[in-house]
Amino acid sequence: ISTYEHGQGSAEKGSFRHFMLKEIYEQPAVMQAVLEGRVASGHLLEQAFGSEAAAVFDQVKQVQIVACGTSFHAGMVAKYWIEELVGIPCMVEVASEFRYRPVVLPQGTLLLTLSQSGETADTLAALREVKERVLATLAICNVPGSSLVRESDLSLMTNAGPEIGVASTKAFTSQLVALMLTTIALGRRHGLEKQKESELIAALQQLPALLEQLLALDGPIEAMSAHFAEKHHALFLGRNSLYPVAMEGALKLKEISYIHAEAYPAGELKHGPLALVDKEMPVIAVAPRNGMLDKLKANLQEVKARGGELFVFAGCEESIQPQEGMHVIHLPAMPSVLDPIAFTLPLQLLSYHVAVLKGTDVDQPRNLAKSVTVE
Amino acid sequence: ISTYEHGQGSAEKGSFRHFMLKEIYEQPAVMQAVLEGRVASGHLLEQAFGSEAAAVFDQVKQVQIVACGTSFHAGMVAKYWIEELVGIPCMVEVASEFRYRPVVLPQGTLLLTLSQSGETADTLAALREVKERVLATLAICNVPGSSLVRESDLSLMTNAGPEIGVASTKAFTSQLVALMLTTIALGRRHGLEKQKESELIAALQQLPALLEQLLALDGPIEAMSAHFAEKHHALFLGRNSLYPVAMEGALKLKEISYIHAEAYPAGELKHGPLALVDKEMPVIAVAPRNGMLDKLKANLQEVKARGGELFVFAGCEESIQPQEGMHVIHLPAMPSVLDPIAFTLPLQLLSYHVAVLKGTDVDQPRNLAKSVTVE
Repeated sequence: ISTYEHGQGSAEKGSFRHFMLKEIYEQPAVMQAVLEGRVASGHLLEQAFGSEAAAVFDQVKQVQIVACGTSFHAGMVAKYWIEELVGIPCMVEVASEFRYRPVVLPQGTLLLTLSQSGETADTLAALREVKERVLATLAICNVPGSSLVRESDLSLMTNAGPEIGVASTKAFTSQLVALMLTTIALGRRHGLEKQKESELIAALQQLPALLEQLLALDGPIEAMSAHFAEKHHALFLGRNSLYPVAMEGALKLKEISYIHAEAYPAGELKHGPLALVDKEMPVIAVAPRNGMLDKLKANLQEVKARGGELFVFAGCEESIQPQEGMHVIHLPAMPSVLDPIAFTLPLQLLSYHVAVLKGTDVDQPRNLAKSVTVE
Repeated sequence: ISTYEHGQGSAEKGSFRHFMLKEIYEQPAVMQAVLEGRVASGHLLEQAFGSEAAAVFDQVKQVQIVACGTSFHAGMVAKYWIEELVGIPCMVEVASEFRYRPVVLPQGTLLLTLSQSGETADTLAALREVKERVLATLAICNVPGSSLVRESDLSLMTNAGPEIGVASTKAFTSQLVALMLTTIALGRRHGLEKQKESELIAALQQLPALLEQLLALDGPIEAMSAHFAEKHHALFLGRNSLYPVAMEGALKLKEISYIHAEAYPAGELKHGPLALVDKEMPVIAVAPRNGMLDKLKANLQEVKARGGELFVFAGCEESIQPQEGMHVIHLPAMPSVLDPIAFTLPLQLLSYHVAVLKGTDVDQPRNLAKSVTVE
């Protein structure tokens, strides 16, 4: 695995056609960088969060996550992890909502903010609004010395290096790793066994190699992207921790290809969005397990007649095979805790290739700024 | 105000072209029906929730709401109300997600389920999954004797009468009233003053007359609907308790007009969806207060050049006037706590008229069933 250099070279495209593609391809190295100095001998080094970290984590009774855009989706993944592996309540809210309402912050609340730049206006305002009313504040951020980091009690840098493409890629996956490290730190206080911690760390350490394998899917994904070149709509479906991954996949497609993509938790399909599905609206499903796919297939019988086409990113233990109206890309075998990180990468590649086919300005999509530093 | 009859006449269209329109027009009477026997002398009669209600409410420390589709949107409104007026944590989750993950249920959790039919498969399964692990269960439902009602400790009927149109209208607004009554019941235990309770009840009692006034906007809304007849996309924006109302407005348009409508909290616009806005994607904003409108107008300057057109439903205290590229419908003056109920009705009318122009099967949209009684 190559060592990742944070030099000024990171702001050059090199042989890549776009910064976004370069940043997608940097992810194996970024996974290495975000773990470096944070784990040793199969365990988390929690002082990486700051010298007061251990004392703070000892007192955390629930977590309130606040973020915007892509960072919000990372926060949503963390809710699934924290509630499953730590067993304490975790609330997640977009910063522009959180900051303007009288929020409830029970005793022992850790306020966790997420921002690539550390200068996102609403997230920073939310931090300032409530920091005196919470146990402590933790920023997960990609820019050391940013306002968010300076004003928080604890911080963990995502070490992803400069991200130039407006559509966030490596910043998101590195946030997810940082959030899993946070989950482990909190889990230690709530019955997460040393053995389980070692398993989780070992899984994280597989990420660089796993993401290299996923990059090898670039060819089949580029081929798949042709199906979207003439489309104006897309529906993304996921369950559990892959629901926010579906949201993030939809956001990428929106941002750079201007396709109106929307994500739903798969179980909500029959409560409305199924009415939209026809040959003009492809359905993308991220489906690591058979259980969800079986339910989804049942739903999709109803729309097959209308020409609804299904694109499935499936875990490799799946028996699902491509068939009429159903395209399938199989992902390599992996520990399930990595699903949200691993399934993100193919969706990034899909949106990238669709945007290239559409001929949009991939790195600088219309109307958007890299960091939203004003309201 | 006319008395609302729950006779078999409710299942006849009468002079209305569609059940959906009839059910929209029934809402003033339904508001009356859902309050009847639940309030007296400016106070809530909490035994309406069941004989054990007072003892249960005394012990509630947080609320977990579980629902699907339109009912989920009602639950999201309630989160804003409960956290502001009661000051205890309120979590809301779609049933198909909640039932399949190891959820955290702190001591003193009231599980509140919402379903028009009381037979929604995922909601019922979620109830059965956790009922032994919560303080108590409360069902807000439109069908007495339904499974959800029978299997819950407490219940409050929404008294909306039979709803035939697949796209829920009066069931949603009556759920909101029931949720405000629940908020008041919980608020009594958490410092909500008698004076404030009386104000809230008085506001609710204005609903029948207010909704009659809102129905008088039918003409202007029908005229506005012509702008959507050729569109395939729409973006709905709201903040605070009107964000879920924007979600519900988008869902209506999806369900019956097959326009791909999506809702965002207004503050998230710059974090992605702004890239989509052009002359093909009208933006609908529900904006009761000047603060949000000012921010929104700033954002929209950027997209004006691209022909992005704005449709605003504004509170009457607004100084905002129609201008080039901005259509405005003013709502009558009302207490702000009624905003989510009041702003819903014009959005129902908008989706109805768009669907009629599009020539879809309004009462029985493709692919959808009235009650989702299977997974």
